[in-house]
Formats: sequence, C-alpha cells, structure tokens
Amino acid sequence: MPGALDGIRVLDFSRVFAAPAGTQILGDLGADVVKVEEPRKGDEARYYGMTEQALRAPGAASPPFLALNRNKRSIALDLGCPAGREVAFRLSAGSDVLVHNFRPGAMARWGLGYDAIRAANRRVIYCEFFAYGKEGPLAQVGANDLALQAHSGLMSITGEPGRPPVRCGTAAIDLHAGLAMVAAVLAALYHRERTGEGQAVETSLLLGSAHLMNYFYTEYWLDGTVRKPMGTANHLSVPNQVFPASDGGVVIIAPSDEMWRRCAAALAPARLDRPEFRRSLDRLRLRAELIEALGAVTRTMSCGELVKRLSAARVNVAKVNSIGEAADHGQLAEAGGLVEIGVDGRPLKAVSSPFKLGGTPARVDRPPPRLGAHTEEILLQRGFGGDEVSAFREQGAFGKA
Amino acid sequence: MPGALDGIRVLDFSRVFAAPAGTQILGDLGADVVKVEEPRKGDEARYYGMTEQALRAPGAASPPFLALNRNKRSIALDLGCPAGREVAFRLSAGSDVLVHNFRPGAMARWGLGYDAIRAANRRVIYCEFFAYGKEGPLAQVGANDLALQAHSGLMSITGEPGRPPVRCGTAAIDLHAGLAMVAAVLAALYHRERTGEGQAVETSLLLGSAHLMNYFYTEYWLDGTVRKPMGTANHLSVPNQVFPASDGGVVIIAPSDEMWRRCAAALAPARLDRPEFRRSLDRLRLRAELIEALGAVTRTMSCGELVKRLSAARVNVAKVNSIGEAADHGQLAEAGGLVEIGVDGRPLKAVSSPFKLGGTPARVDRPPPRLGAHTEEILLQRGFGGDEVSAFREQGAFGKA
Repeated sequence: MPGALDGIRVLDFSRVFAAPAGTQILGDLGADVVKVEEPRKGDEARYYGMTEQALRAPGAASPPFLALNRNKRSIALDLGCPAGREVAFRLSAGSDVLVHNFRPGAMARWGLGYDAIRAANRRVIYCEFFAYGKEGPLAQVGANDLALQAHSGLMSITGEPGRPPVRCGTAAIDLHAGLAMVAAVLAALYHRERTGEGQAVETSLLLGSAHLMNYFYTEYWLDGTVRKPMGTANHLSVPNQVFPASDGGVVIIAPSDEMWRRCAAALAPARLDRPEFRRSLDRLRLRAELIEALGAVTRTMSCGELVKRLSAARVNVAKVNSIGEAADHGQLAEAGGLVEIGVDGRPLKAVSSPFKLGGTPARVDRPPPRLGAHTEEILLQRGFGGDEVSAFREQGAFGKA
Repeated sequence: MPGALDGIRVLDFSRVFAAPAGTQILGDLGADVVKVEEPRKGDEARYYGMTEQALRAPGAASPPFLALNRNKRSIALDLGCPAGREVAFRLSAGSDVLVHNFRPGAMARWGLGYDAIRAANRRVIYCEFFAYGKEGPLAQVGANDLALQAHSGLMSITGEPGRPPVRCGTAAIDLHAGLAMVAAVLAALYHRERTGEGQAVETSLLLGSAHLMNYFYTEYWLDGTVRKPMGTANHLSVPNQVFPASDGGVVIIAPSDEMWRRCAAALAPARLDRPEFRRSLDRLRLRAELIEALGAVTRTMSCGELVKRLSAARVNVAKVNSIGEAADHGQLAEAGGLVEIGVDGRPLKAVSSPFKLGGTPARVDRPPPRLGAHTEEILLQRGFGGDEVSAFREQGAFGKA
C-alpha cells in the first residue's frame, strides 16, 4: 500500500529530541528524510545518557537517538564552511520540506533562510522549530524540554502537595512540539496540493508547552486561579487519583455521577454508595472523606481484582505500571503500537507513530542511521555528479579529512 | 488570507478533552467543525472542575471546555433514538471528516460505522479515537489521561526519588493524542487530495502515551533498564534539573561539555570549572558532587541574575514559573501563542494551536458554543428542509421536548 507522503523529500537540519521526533513521523508516513549532521560529532542526542562502555561499541547510539531517528538517511555537512553550505543550499532547493531547529537568524546567516530557499524553490515548505519563537525577549535564549517544563508552569503543578515541584518524567513538551511540527507541515502540504503554494511554518517548545497547559491558563485568565501540585489527584473531579491495592496501586477515575455510582456498587455499595457522595460537586467538597473511604476498600483487594471489577462496571481504572510492565503489555502490540527496527543487524522493538492510517499505513524502511552513512548516495541521487562530490569533499563540505 | 482547511466539513462526535482538543485545531485551520452533543447534558467537560456558583451562571462552561471548543458549532442529537441517528447519518454522509471517541463498536451499532458511512461517501475520512485501541485485552476498558499516565509508566518515573509517584500536572496524554489525531486527519486529507481516496484513521490514548514514552521503552527493550523518578533531574545529563536561587528556582541544563564550560565560566569559574567535571560522562558519575557545588553558587544569586548570566553565555536556563507567571509572560504573546475568544460577550484570552502557518494563518471565528445552539442553522445549511427539521424535532432527534 502507498504511504501518505510517498515521494516527499524532507531535508532535516534538526538535532536532539523534539524536531527529530517530528521528522521521524514524516518518515513513517513515507517521506524520504535526509538528516543533516555535523561531521564527526553528529546529532548530540547520539550520546545522551550513554555509559562509557556503550559509547565504545561500534556505531554507538543512545536509546533516545534510536527511538527518534528511524526512516532517515544521514548526510554529514559542515555548515561552517562555504562548500558545505553550497551543498546544503542545493539540497534545500530540491526538497519539498526543510526543517531546522537552529536559533533564530542562524540559517539566514548561512544563506539558507526562507527568502533564499524560496527564491530557488517556490513550493518549499520551510519549517522552523524554535525554543521560544522568532521574536520577543526570550527569542535568543536556549532551551530544552525541562526549561519549558519550568517556564510554562507545568513543573509548578507537578509534585506532592506542600513539597518541591518535580518534572514530568518524560520529555512531553519536546515530543508534543515535535508532533505539532508534523501537523504544521501536513497542513502546509495539503494547502500546497490545493494551490501550488509553499509557505513558511513555525513551531516552538513555547507554543507546544502552552498548548499542553491551555486549560490551566484559561482558568487563570478567567478568574485568577493558580493551581498547585496535587500528587496524583486532580482538581477536576473526585475520585481521580491513585488508590492503594494490596499489591500496588491503581488509578480510579469516576467524574460523572453515574460512573461514581457504578464504582461504589462494584466495590462496596454499603460503604461507598452514600447519599453525600452522589453529586460531583459534593464529591469535590468531601474530597478527603471520599478518598479515605474508597482507599479503605481498595487496599483490601489486589490490582488485578480492582481492574477486573471496575472495568466490568465501566469505571475508568488502570494499574500503575513500571516502564517494563508498560512496554511489554500485550495491549501495545495488539493496538499496533510496536514497530521493529534493526540495530547493528539485531532486531529492536520501537514505538510506532501515534496513529494508524488504514489506507496508507506507516512503514519502517530504514534503521537509525550511522553518522554520514549516506552522504554520497544522497548526493548522487539528487543530481550531483561524482566529480562534484569529490570536489566538495576536498573543499571540506563533509568535514575535514 | 485563506485557511489551510477552508471548506472542509468536520463532524465531531467526540467528548471530554483529547479528541475535542484535536478538532479545535482543525477549526483553527479553517475547517467547519460541527460538535454533536447529547441533548440537555452535552459534552461532560462542560462541568469539569466547576463550582456550584459557576454552574449557576447562564451558559456556564468550565475552563477546560472553554479552552478546547472554540471554532465549533454545536448540534444536539439524541443518538439513542432512530430519528437522531438518521440525522447523524445524513450529516456524516455530507462531511469530509468524521471524528468520534465512543467505545469500539458503538458507532457501528448505531448504523454509523465506517462501512456504512463509506458506502454513502467514498471520500470520507473516518477518524476513531480510542482509549486502548479497537482490539486486544483492554479494548473495552474505559480510560482517561490519568489512566494512561498510570498504564504507560509515565507516573512511575514522575516524582521524588524514594517517594510515591505523582501525575504529570496537566493532561499531557490527552492533548498529545488529540494532536496525533490532527496529524492523522491531515495526512489522510493530503492523500485524498492526491488520489481521491478517503480512509479510516485511528489513534488512542495508548498510542499517544507510548509515543510520549518512546525512548524509555526503547531503552528497556535494548538492555532492560527500568527508570525511576528523579525529582526534577534527568538520567540523560548533568546538570539538568532545578537549582535554588535566592528568590525561587531555575532549571539549568548543560548537556554538552562546551555548554558546561560556559556555564561554569558564567557563574563561578574558580569553583565550578574543575577538571573532573569537564567530560559529560564524568559529570554523570559525579552527579551529587556537581549538584552540590553548583547549588552552592546559585543560591547566592537571584533568578533574574542567573537567567541573565546563563542566557548570555548560551546555557539553557529557565525560571520555575507559576501558572500565572507563565500565562502572563510577554513571550507568549510575542510568539503568537495567544488568541482571543468571546465568552458571554466578554473577551477571554486563550492559547493558540501549537504552530504558526505563514501562508494560511489560524483564525478564531467562533467562541465555544452553547449546547445545541446551532442545531437548526446547521441542518438548514446542510440541505435539510424546514419541514424535515420540524419532523425530526417531533420524533425526538434533538432531545425530548
């Protein structure tokens, strides 16, 4: 079956987590993604969280790099030298989509800004991925996921009540902003298909973080409410948090009055189906009392028993899993959430793009690339002559010999 | 300027947070989004986190509902009655995109499954949004954001070391999966524009959560590592966490050796630029020592001073903001992250979609709708006769009188 983005050429100057996560999705959709890397060093995510031992292995690459760079080929280009920039320009002019996450202004200084590329290729979709956006007081400040967890207020609502803030354990802002980039590129491709017009599109960790925080900001703008950390609980409804089981923990969420009634009935009607708990507003008011009553019941049952009883009663319930339990849970494979990539000739499981397209399924054509592994192949495919490639090599375009 | 999705009709049966967050983005892009709601009750997110007083206000709607439902019109349809289902079918047949987040099988039982709609409209993009997917052991288990925070292992890596897990403070999985839905719909629209073919697409909280966790799962599959909570810190590099300032906290992230060198030089070279800290692997090994040394320096400076010094040295740094500080920070407005919606005739700020399209900018045409406010208007526009509407009304299609 065809891929939705078959034939689309993506030139990807981006590094680290967020934008590479986005271009991987474009690759899953069928696009031909060329990853531009700094000679010798490459995407610094190759080294994140690596041990000394792991780094010594041939073709060493960190788990995050492996997780976010399948379906890409790698070309090593030195943008610090004129020959490298010339190659980059010619590749850009022949691409459908260009992605970068350098600081505002860097690409223009290298002669690779939107105006220059558009002059050579009117149909290009030029996608910039910033930390805080192109303009404004923070535009030139560097940032990563954690910085935006702090800046956005996400950290201020994550943690135990009365204790210090903590981070959301995964790089949620990076990955969300990377997915936003995918949506922006796809919307622009759709528009181009209807009109013939390319355009510049933009996202940032800031916009991604604000989107994740949107209902907290709306509440603040509406009435000044500033939320604080609530452990596993939630200001929206009660019960909506972790409860203790005899062998672990489960979350139980019953926001509507009907669902709460079913929850009480499924676990211990005599102790839980009390008139004062029947209305959602009363459950919010009697939060401490309800949590104590429900916890006293749940701690007498196992996780398995709680999940069985509550899911049968159509009450939202889930076990608190470890990373390993979650990764290996059979549901992920059943839901099509796994793909297989090859790393050094051995198969390795990886997580799919976060959707399934019935008519144009995702595919994995290539494992995460070694740094610069496809430099020559890409250039010859894109119309560079063999002599030209040699000349550029001598001029240092692919790094000093 | 045109919108990328001008002329696209979206019929949106979805409720609560995740899928409505996605259809709002489609609306921002220019699509005509019709929100189908249960008569009298409506989307239950209308009531989440509301106080008794707020609920008494006319047209009351919760902050999350206001945050996630602009650019939509609301039609009240009773899918429990044949007349309501007939109206739903006719609207579906005339739509470009259909979205629902009912449990697997529910739409088919109402005669609104993919096969039925596709028979009437070969070009339809039929988007299903599930909790855990269509098949598998958990397919019929209800879930929400918190359930997937627990199931996915996100909760198991969020919190202070040695203390109980906590939630990520915002509904990151809901919002991420909602954005995944947008990407899936846009990819399908693009494919349809190239081929004329519609298709069924699917996402789920499970796929969204797994995508957010992807590098943790990859690491586990690679070598069995099961990560645990680390407060604000991170296993990927050191320093990469909150440090105390004299008047609050800042995050400092310096993963590369060059950035760490600049960090040390900008704050206290004599105390920090020590040979044993110069290599990233050594900083990981000497985590406790480095954190103590850096913290001893940062606590003598204010947040403002730290941000100023470190950002000038191109070191990733950010203040730990409260919700209010984040929402009102001037950078968000400068970056185009704010839109204005009208609520009961008063303007209210809201968060933009998480990207900007230069050639086809987002727009806000409509405030979040009152329940069923556009029932008649929509039907007349979509070719229903006035008499037909009256007949459907008598048959209870829009709720019992």
